[in-house]
Amino acid sequence: MSKKDKVKIIPLGGINEIGKNMTVIEYKNDIIVIDSGLMFPEEEMFGVDIVIPDISYLIKQKDKVKAIVLTHGHEDHIGALPYILKQLNVPVYGTKLTLGIVQTKLKEHGILRDCSLNVVKPKDIITFGDIKVEFIKNCHSIPDSCSLAIHTPAGIIVHTGDFKIDYTPIDGVVMDLARLAELGKQGVMLLMADSTNIERPGYTMSERTVGETFDKIFSETKSRIIVATFASNIHRIQQIMDSAYKHGRKVAISGRSIENIVEVASELGYLKFAEGLFIDIDDIEKYKPSDIVIITTGSQGEPMSALARMSTSEHKKVEIMRDDLVIVSATPIPGNEKLISRVINQLFKRGANVIYESLADIHVSGHACQEELKLIHTLVKPKYFMPVHGEYRHLKQHSLLAQKLGMDEKNIFISDIGQIFEINENMGRLSGYVTAGQVLVDGLGVGDVGNIVLRDRKHLSQDGILTVVVTIEKETGKVIAGPDIISRGFVYVRESEDLMEEARNIVKAALEKCLKNQVTEWAAIKSSIKDDLREYLYEKTKRKPMILPIIMEI
Amino acid sequence: MSKKDKVKIIPLGGINEIGKNMTVIEYKNDIIVIDSGLMFPEEEMFGVDIVIPDISYLIKQKDKVKAIVLTHGHEDHIGALPYILKQLNVPVYGTKLTLGIVQTKLKEHGILRDCSLNVVKPKDIITFGDIKVEFIKNCHSIPDSCSLAIHTPAGIIVHTGDFKIDYTPIDGVVMDLARLAELGKQGVMLLMADSTNIERPGYTMSERTVGETFDKIFSETKSRIIVATFASNIHRIQQIMDSAYKHGRKVAISGRSIENIVEVASELGYLKFAEGLFIDIDDIEKYKPSDIVIITTGSQGEPMSALARMSTSEHKKVEIMRDDLVIVSATPIPGNEKLISRVINQLFKRGANVIYESLADIHVSGHACQEELKLIHTLVKPKYFMPVHGEYRHLKQHSLLAQKLGMDEKNIFISDIGQIFEINENMGRLSGYVTAGQVLVDGLGVGDVGNIVLRDRKHLSQDGILTVVVTIEKETGKVIAGPDIISRGFVYVRESEDLMEEARNIVKAALEKCLKNQVTEWAAIKSSIKDDLREYLYEKTKRKPMILPIIMEI
Repeated sequence: MSKKDKVKIIPLGGINEIGKNMTVIEYKNDIIVIDSGLMFPEEEMFGVDIVIPDISYLIKQKDKVKAIVLTHGHEDHIGALPYILKQLNVPVYGTKLTLGIVQTKLKEHGILRDCSLNVVKPKDIITFGDIKVEFIKNCHSIPDSCSLAIHTPAGIIVHTGDFKIDYTPIDGVVMDLARLAELGKQGVMLLMADSTNIERPGYTMSERTVGETFDKIFSETKSRIIVATFASNIHRIQQIMDSAYKHGRKVAISGRSIENIVEVASELGYLKFAEGLFIDIDDIEKYKPSDIVIITTGSQGEPMSALARMSTSEHKKVEIMRDDLVIVSATPIPGNEKLISRVINQLFKRGANVIYESLADIHVSGHACQEELKLIHTLVKPKYFMPVHGEYRHLKQHSLLAQKLGMDEKNIFISDIGQIFEINENMGRLSGYVTAGQVLVDGLGVGDVGNIVLRDRKHLSQDGILTVVVTIEKETGKVIAGPDIISRGFVYVRESEDLMEEARNIVKAALEKCLKNQVTEWAAIKSSIKDDLREYLYEKTKRKPMILPIIMEI
Repeated sequence: MSKKDKVKIIPLGGINEIGKNMTVIEYKNDIIVIDSGLMFPEEEMFGVDIVIPDISYLIKQKDKVKAIVLTHGHEDHIGALPYILKQLNVPVYGTKLTLGIVQTKLKEHGILRDCSLNVVKPKDIITFGDIKVEFIKNCHSIPDSCSLAIHTPAGIIVHTGDFKIDYTPIDGVVMDLARLAELGKQGVMLLMADSTNIERPGYTMSERTVGETFDKIFSETKSRIIVATFASNIHRIQQIMDSAYKHGRKVAISGRSIENIVEVASELGYLKFAEGLFIDIDDIEKYKPSDIVIITTGSQGEPMSALARMSTSEHKKVEIMRDDLVIVSATPIPGNEKLISRVINQLFKRGANVIYESLADIHVSGHACQEELKLIHTLVKPKYFMPVHGEYRHLKQHSLLAQKLGMDEKNIFISDIGQIFEINENMGRLSGYVTAGQVLVDGLGVGDVGNIVLRDRKHLSQDGILTVVVTIEKETGKVIAGPDIISRGFVYVRESEDLMEEARNIVKAALEKCLKNQVTEWAAIKSSIKDDLREYLYEKTKRKPMILPIIMEI
């Protein structure tokens, strides 16, 4: 490689934010993209359904993009794929289960036929021009998850993806630490590693410990058991099924996402169970409560989920009974605490017993804690390090951890989305920026909701809107009809008749003032109405509703 | 007391919810009210500033209400007081600091002169007709906090208020466990106890441990130190001041609420410090960074707080410098995790070091954990128990704890706001309900924002609004001007001209259809516009903005 040819590493998501993970690896005419994740909207992104990465940079050089390679099948790594592929239809590579989940998504979006999905196995190395991507088995809260070694002319890049080190994983195959050690020996230029759990000391417990808790609980329980968990946590589902089988219970499933994934995972051989273990949710009444386990969605308290509907007696097929045991096998994602708490309260009120994280070991994280990260750093021994998958606080802590392990701070790069990190055989440095950001998806609209629309939605949500309509005679400027004021989200109109009547007078006065001063431009008249009305309303209510003056001319 | 006379205990807040604590104790012609707290609005209470209890029940029998007695000076116990006293001006009783804080509030609301504030000390017993209220020293995250023993003709009621058991409190006075034991021996009819930390095993650490951490950090730090904490945590502030003094640093204060409380607490003797310790925030530039500690608001990441403004370089007097040490001495209240995380990220980005709860012992809770609660139950030995201050899950867990200690489930009453619990010397039972609920405060409006307004605000926040205006000739029903469509919070209008043009055509067609079918009622015309437009927009965008048709007639 000539000195001026550099390999560029450009995160388009997942740095300084949690979610929408996407990283570009570029060398001359070849680009590969790692992951295509989505992010759930922040609280102030009113009405937005999901957030995906801005891929303008890739669109501009479509022909260079050789592939999207996927580390695993979680939404924050594959959720943007249908939207991205519609604009940039390139081959996708991933393990069997990952692509199984992707397939369901692409089918829903009606683009499955047009897409090229390529199944890989751990240890596979796929060549894209001068870039080779090697898939390395790791462990995570979804099966078939991989770390990546990207072999480039500038050296090897190791990207951990999301991972934890589980010495007793449910699928029996431990993360391929030997291969990472081998690469470390060979010499790794850059390590990009998961920072999600960097603030937690020690180790993440093995998924198997959750199974042990289930076993204990199942053996002590005579009533019906309902377990809510993340749909994609197939190992968790396997363990629930195993405990159910062991204690002579049948398993029913409720919730679309879990139904889908159980179907995919069973088909592809990722769930193993005796024939007749599953029963239809419609048939649960035919069994004694002590013979049933229901696995359900809703572990985050999502208002439309199966568990939330059970908790408010709105579920069509499952009615919570006195003494039902509900296990919420998950931890609340930040921001969801109140939702899940509401569901737990409702379940208790209906007489169910509820076991949740603060009461028993019924969940473990899928991400590595400090000691696990230390092991990876020690094995991989990279020249450069870029912490990924975290907010700035996490990236910073991860940098401090690497420094404690002896790494020089100047070889650690806290990057940002859009920022280019370039390396050749001799050096690595942050250079300029490419376009990057958030694209908001709202209904069918991808990117048509931006700052102005969001600002308006926020304003509307706080104090509502007053629409002021008046019809004016073109020639004379005289008011023919109105002014009428219609408010929404401002005050109870019935109880505020005086206020609204006075508001009308304010508008009338503003109009008369304009007429008298021969102000005839609409913009000026509207401004005058707005200003006077705003001032009056603020004085009376200390609120600032949006004011929308509309002038009709005849 | 005759058999039919009963003492009624009616929570008007703080049961099945966190905050707006208020409990009514009623006997024949006497009512006393314990606490008058506020609650911060739930996420979906768009635009609402605070939530206070519905006191219709008290208003209806104004003359019976003898006093409001306060356990301590936190917002969730005194925050509603200015609003309540405006409707129900009764004498208020509380300890010196509690009333000092109340005073500041009443002054802001301009009602201080008209109110009767009565200072009590622990061990004081105040008589209100047949009801006597005894104040009992406890420990909490604010000084001068009390539990209450309410002596009634039906027996003694012990209300713990918010508390923890701190054997080494900063003010040197341990909770009066001896008095509780004495009352227990005497015989307590009903215990009402704080359930906030019921899910936490073990004990809450002493406030003093935080001081030890401060001392250690201060002794190791050469740079400027900025500590954010709750304004009302005066013991915390005392400890920061003590560490500052010990290590030769001056203290400056930033943030209105903390300035207010430091003033009140100093005046009343609750903060002790050497002369010259405090410096004006304007003078910090005159000192070396190593000689300064700034105590600030913003430990919850509140967007307008001093710390948040420092983090975004919008603070007028404090500019974050490289190597500043920022200590966030608090735990995020559920729902605030993202706000505080944002501030921490910004501070790190500006080169500060940040210490927060997951990294060091720089905060302890003010509430009792399981072992402390067991002690109280054991000392008080009540006949009946009502868990208070918690969501249903907490109340339920508290009930289970009491049962483990040997209490009969039928003597434990999980109540609800508005529900009457009545006791006489022989029995206790839940009986009917009185009016209770939430009153929403938005700006100057108290209770004028209700379900319809909130529903509209939510709708507006999701997909915005389309206003459709048309002027019609009265006689003929012919359209004279318009239809015009103005949207806010829906789509970028500039990029959606075709959509809006087509929307106008849909409205025109709807109007023509009405004219043709001789539909002349406004309501019918509006409905027709709404239906056709809604269907079209949903098909094109999968969004459902509010549609507001306005017809002007001339």
